[in-house]
Amino acid sequence: MLSYSLEKRSDLLPHRAPGSPGHSRQNYLSGKPIRYYRPKGSADVRHLIAEGFQAFNAGRLSEACAIFADKMLAPEHETTIGLTIAGAMTPAGLGGCVIELMDRGLVDFVISTGANLYHDLHYALNFTLRRGSPFVDDRELYEEGVIRIYDVLFPATVLLETDAYIRDFIVRSKLNEPVSTSEFHFRLGLDLMQKHPGCEEYSVVAYAAKAGVPVYTSSPGDSSIGMNIAYHELMNDSRFMIDPNKDVNEVCAIVLAGKQNGCVILGGGSPKNFYLQAQPTLWEVYGIPKGGNDYFIQITTDQVVWGGLSGATPSEAVSWGKVNPGVLPDTVVAYCDSTIAFPLFCEYAIGSQNGRRQRKELVHKRDRLVQALKAEAKAADEKKSQKSEV
Amino acid sequence: MLSYSLEKRSDLLPHRAPGSPGHSRQNYLSGKPIRYYRPKGSADVRHLIAEGFQAFNAGRLSEACAIFADKMLAPEHETTIGLTIAGAMTPAGLGGCVIELMDRGLVDFVISTGANLYHDLHYALNFTLRRGSPFVDDRELYEEGVIRIYDVLFPATVLLETDAYIRDFIVRSKLNEPVSTSEFHFRLGLDLMQKHPGCEEYSVVAYAAKAGVPVYTSSPGDSSIGMNIAYHELMNDSRFMIDPNKDVNEVCAIVLAGKQNGCVILGGGSPKNFYLQAQPTLWEVYGIPKGGNDYFIQITTDQVVWGGLSGATPSEAVSWGKVNPGVLPDTVVAYCDSTIAFPLFCEYAIGSQNGRRQRKELVHKRDRLVQALKAEAKAADEKKSQKSEV
Amino acid sequence: MLSYSLEKRSDLLPHRAPGSPGHSRQNYLSGKPIRYYRPKGSADVRHLIAEGFQAFNAGRLSEACAIFADKMLAPEHETTIGLTIAGAMTPAGLGGCVIELMDRGLVDFVISTGANLYHDLHYALNFTLRRGSPFVDDRELYEEGVIRIYDVLFPATVLLETDAYIRDFIVRSKLNEPVSTSEFHFRLGLDLMQKHPGCEEYSVVAYAAKAGVPVYTSSPGDSSIGMNIAYHELMNDSRFMIDPNKDVNEVCAIVLAGKQNGCVILGGGSPKNFYLQAQPTLWEVYGIPKGGNDYFIQITTDQVVWGGLSGATPSEAVSWGKVNPGVLPDTVVAYCDSTIAFPLFCEYAIGSQNGRRQRKELVHKRDRLVQALKAEAKAADEKKSQKSEV
Amino acid sequence: MLSYSLEKRSDLLPHRAPGSPGHSRQNYLSGKPIRYYRPKGSADVRHLIAEGFQAFNAGRLSEACAIFADKMLAPEHETTIGLTIAGAMTPAGLGGCVIELMDRGLVDFVISTGANLYHDLHYALNFTLRRGSPFVDDRELYEEGVIRIYDVLFPATVLLETDAYIRDFIVRSKLNEPVSTSEFHFRLGLDLMQKHPGCEEYSVVAYAAKAGVPVYTSSPGDSSIGMNIAYHELMNDSRFMIDPNKDVNEVCAIVLAGKQNGCVILGGGSPKNFYLQAQPTLWEVYGIPKGGNDYFIQITTDQVVWGGLSGATPSEAVSWGKVNPGVLPDTVVAYCDSTIAFPLFCEYAIGSQNGRRQRKELVHKRDRLVQALKAEAKAADEKKSQKSEV
Repeated sequence: MLSYSLEKRSDLLPHRAPGSPGHSRQNYLSGKPIRYYRPKGSADVRHLIAEGFQAFNAGRLSEACAIFADKMLAPEHETTIGLTIAGAMTPAGLGGCVIELMDRGLVDFVISTGANLYHDLHYALNFTLRRGSPFVDDRELYEEGVIRIYDVLFPATVLLETDAYIRDFIVRSKLNEPVSTSEFHFRLGLDLMQKHPGCEEYSVVAYAAKAGVPVYTSSPGDSSIGMNIAYHELMNDSRFMIDPNKDVNEVCAIVLAGKQNGCVILGGGSPKNFYLQAQPTLWEVYGIPKGGNDYFIQITTDQVVWGGLSGATPSEAVSWGKVNPGVLPDTVVAYCDSTIAFPLFCEYAIGSQNGRRQRKELVHKRDRLVQALKAEAKAADEKKSQKSEV
Repeated sequence: MLSYSLEKRSDLLPHRAPGSPGHSRQNYLSGKPIRYYRPKGSADVRHLIAEGFQAFNAGRLSEACAIFADKMLAPEHETTIGLTIAGAMTPAGLGGCVIELMDRGLVDFVISTGANLYHDLHYALNFTLRRGSPFVDDRELYEEGVIRIYDVLFPATVLLETDAYIRDFIVRSKLNEPVSTSEFHFRLGLDLMQKHPGCEEYSVVAYAAKAGVPVYTSSPGDSSIGMNIAYHELMNDSRFMIDPNKDVNEVCAIVLAGKQNGCVILGGGSPKNFYLQAQPTLWEVYGIPKGGNDYFIQITTDQVVWGGLSGATPSEAVSWGKVNPGVLPDTVVAYCDSTIAFPLFCEYAIGSQNGRRQRKELVHKRDRLVQALKAEAKAADEKKSQKSEV
Repeated sequence: MLSYSLEKRSDLLPHRAPGSPGHSRQNYLSGKPIRYYRPKGSADVRHLIAEGFQAFNAGRLSEACAIFADKMLAPEHETTIGLTIAGAMTPAGLGGCVIELMDRGLVDFVISTGANLYHDLHYALNFTLRRGSPFVDDRELYEEGVIRIYDVLFPATVLLETDAYIRDFIVRSKLNEPVSTSEFHFRLGLDLMQKHPGCEEYSVVAYAAKAGVPVYTSSPGDSSIGMNIAYHELMNDSRFMIDPNKDVNEVCAIVLAGKQNGCVILGGGSPKNFYLQAQPTLWEVYGIPKGGNDYFIQITTDQVVWGGLSGATPSEAVSWGKVNPGVLPDTVVAYCDSTIAFPLFCEYAIGSQNGRRQRKELVHKRDRLVQALKAEAKAADEKKSQKSEV
Repeated sequence: MLSYSLEKRSDLLPHRAPGSPGHSRQNYLSGKPIRYYRPKGSADVRHLIAEGFQAFNAGRLSEACAIFADKMLAPEHETTIGLTIAGAMTPAGLGGCVIELMDRGLVDFVISTGANLYHDLHYALNFTLRRGSPFVDDRELYEEGVIRIYDVLFPATVLLETDAYIRDFIVRSKLNEPVSTSEFHFRLGLDLMQKHPGCEEYSVVAYAAKAGVPVYTSSPGDSSIGMNIAYHELMNDSRFMIDPNKDVNEVCAIVLAGKQNGCVILGGGSPKNFYLQAQPTLWEVYGIPKGGNDYFIQITTDQVVWGGLSGATPSEAVSWGKVNPGVLPDTVVAYCDSTIAFPLFCEYAIGSQNGRRQRKELVHKRDRLVQALKAEAKAADEKKSQKSEV
């Protein structure tokens, strides 16, 4: 048997001054308010990205910036650009980047998780989300009525009041039939601007309405917005609902109409899938050959090796006809938290010579584009019928 | 200047026999067919998990197995168990695990990405997906008409024929109004069994219909199923659509009716969110205090540090009222590819003494449960009105 | 201004029974002891891996098992097999797998982080590490004198007593010159078996000495073993030290002597690099063309996209002459926590028809192999001189 | 049986213009040269980090910048700061950041993988590494004699010429005894400056020698530098070797002498472990209570959930006495590729009011500090003996 000396730990381990105080119950909501940061196109940031970001994911991010600014935004390409948003970007204050891109005509339509749009409303309604820590006691938060999104903290009443606004809007809107999410978000944005003038500077939903940018949600029941619409149906016997068919067809129609098509994908998830399926819908379902995306930029931390669509490469998308097989050099995935990479990306793009484009205002052209899709699909159908008759 | 000797690389680097041949164009579809593996409850696997999986994620997976088999499945708890599925699980052959769990009454309802259900149909329709490699030339695949899901390969015609079946079913079904995804999948499953007798052993959608397990999709437009429904609306002027409100309310109603509630979350994504939001919908939107989930098992490779909901911990869910603050020890996240961990998990559960339960057959109880939700919500509303009048 | 109803959270959020108790101060060391699990070659596990692990990382792990069992272990290939170990595998109880592989002649040499070997000594010395949780208060642990490795917990005295044994051994060994780590670990293993008869069943270091398997450490100062050797030099003016040159040359010599070469890499880190650099050392430094590894198996969660060597692919290694360019189909990376994948891998290999090989007992052949390396390097040097004279 | 129409893929999938050309054999080395980018302290970047990086890892990085610039660098704290470097930072062009920090006295010693120091020599010797792509055919690279580090490409002759310089230096240095890595790197740096005047602006190793910053390697045999030292021992019967004991004791002595101690950890790996073990060496091996680090900053993509030391949290380090339990609020881990986060971090720090400190020039104080360690350890030993005699 061993008999090395045994001592109590208190004699063994050294102690020192207690250091900074930790997070106490009282100060969960004492952090700095989160604001929508608006990128300005800093020349310094552009220089850092061009000269200092040379390899690995810094290199990828630098490539993504160059592809976006020099190719996708080049006026002669008239690229129709979709932005997809997953991960809690608006709670983290990234909404200002999206607003700036919409304002400058640098994105033409948006596909987002519902949560990002729901939490965007807090800013529009002048509620305050605050910087916090992910290392807090959630049971204490629960007792205190504080809601946590990773390290973003705010009172539970923010949820309840935002819900109350949504339900109030739904009733006032008199919506009583199936609509696309773009239609619903457009009307919501207009209402926000009317009820809270000036709020469009602090709200993606409101600014999108102002700028004519259609905003889609791939999982319409999957957020507090969807929950409140469901409430309206159950409790008020409303016939208002989201019609996912309209979303599918509108996005297809927008992509079909694009002279060139490209995307900026933040995160991955169902918004990524929803954007990318437009091209297969065209050839696989509607029989319309389109040819895949011309540009593909993704900022994500999802890994290809787990096999899911979130982490799937542009290359895998080629086999599905989602990406034009000839353009792989114009596709890039930068592996980085969007909260870091996206503001850098926006600073670069905004400061570039293509930092402003004519807005497409697609929200007002949806019906016409869907009719064009229908006509082309009918024609393809007819051609196929004739062929099989022969 | 330096003048160390320079040589050609061909002189420098050694060569040897060429080794095994790589993947050639001809043999993309020569891999072994992927089958739905059915776990049998192996005692060896149970022993390995209990005794050999002691720490790190092996330890977590072992804990998950024990919580599921010993607590969630314990007859006295009557736990209502939701299974959520993200990531390409059916293409990877995991559908057999889901069928086995449904057969044995071990899951009561399912929330899945649309893609998993769409690709499940290939098996029902007797098409073959094959083992392959993720390291192939996607431009060659494209030329060859081969579709790739990470390392799963199959001909593009599989998509077209599956789509044709779906469109054919939709027309035959005479569906012409908004329905929940559970209703649509139930009818689809019945049709599969009628048209392809015996296919339920090879199809999650079909077996779910047989076993009365409701199957939901959180992003209904976001798969080839949704694409074909959208086609029907555009081309045939149908009024058939998915009503996400019905999905939200049905899932809420199922959770409300649970004596205890628990979930098994594969991956994360919008199915995870859709499941978890049921509890906040109850307290936040319907004013019904329910108290959060009693059990929470997640198998994922999504990381908490990226801040997204996919990787969010059970602890974070406490602050939202999604998880009962008292039960954190009954929550566990095992970080592992589901293709490895889920079959192990199922072998353990099926071999346990609680390896079979009375099926709840919730698909036939949805209407009654939604009415109960409505009644309780109305009562809560009334109580609140009285309170505020006082 | 908004005026939706404001309430206190305590009225809003539901409460329920408190559930299971959390971890209390008293029971940090109440978890089940961690034992070295010994795989037995279960036919059930083999069946699951062969038939149920079909795609994604399950597919990769299945491929890795087949390459190892059917090719690397095939008697006719006489493959020299290195096992590299990073991550806290011995604290997690994986030492039993390594012992079983050494016993059966399935690995010929080992490169490990120092920490794995240091913590292996706890088992040899009959100290107990216990299953715990990663979600504990480390300040409380510190006060209680409990050490944590992720979710493995043990008293701080285990460190102190293990250190005391090491220092005692060093003094008794009378080592007073530079030696390779393989020499040091061999002597340490012999001492353990002498002082604690039978401990080799519970110790990788001891069993390696018994089985003649050389054990290297790539970062010799980087563990408590190295710390105690450094103590001996500073405090006792000893000349005993680790000579990294000897390690480099021994590993080169072993690889040079291999008819075929292959590796099983757990994790990555400096052990992976140390193994893989043997081939470049041969061609780049010694001018001996060897041709790269014939087999390459890695089980890791490190990702290629971060650019580091830990996550670098076998393909990248080809450009360095580390992997034979012809054998990429015999290389595979399975992305999975080793605590899950390695026991499965061992069960498969041990149950295969090649589940036992003649041991190479390389620890006794090191001097001869190094002399062979020297002779071949001298010959290469001479040939090169003659060439450049011409 | 199904009889949906079957067509050839070539009729099904659309084609378009071929897009940009891919990478061809000829242009592997046509990418932009990688340069050591020198951060200048941009006010714009500081503003972005302070105001735009508010949550998630952007928030963490912002906190890291503030802790470093405002606390660690505060003159009154006299913090001894260690920088640890893992991952291929010098190939990616990050050496300029390290040089700038050393020049300004913002880091006092460095622990690096050998690979980073080896590849740093290419810049000193005026060889060119180039921007490339990770998606290239490694068999073609091998044939062409091009070496790849993820997406960094350069001719294999760069390795051979760098090796030739190292071997030439070793011979000229007349080193013939065991030395610490800091001593070896110091002499190497002096030689570089003498042979290639001005190269210190392009070389971490050279600049460290100029600035008196000791540079350690935790795994001395684990790089081409170590390989060439091993060559010298085997082929020239040299007695020159790295003595890891000296490294352990020097780092311990430096940490012991620090009024406050803190670290900036890039990546993780063995350099992280080597830095952190200094505090346990003091209390556990030498019996000297020191109290753990006061500041801890890590930039990494390693995840805590895999259980390894690379991803271990500052909190886990508390239980080992590596981090002062009172200072957790002054510890932070930002999950981000260092190639993106580290230049941002340096811009912030350099532009701060504490952007320049008096250099400690520890390389010249190593002997004195080790003697102080020895004296204190002897005193602790004596005190302990007296105690146990009582």
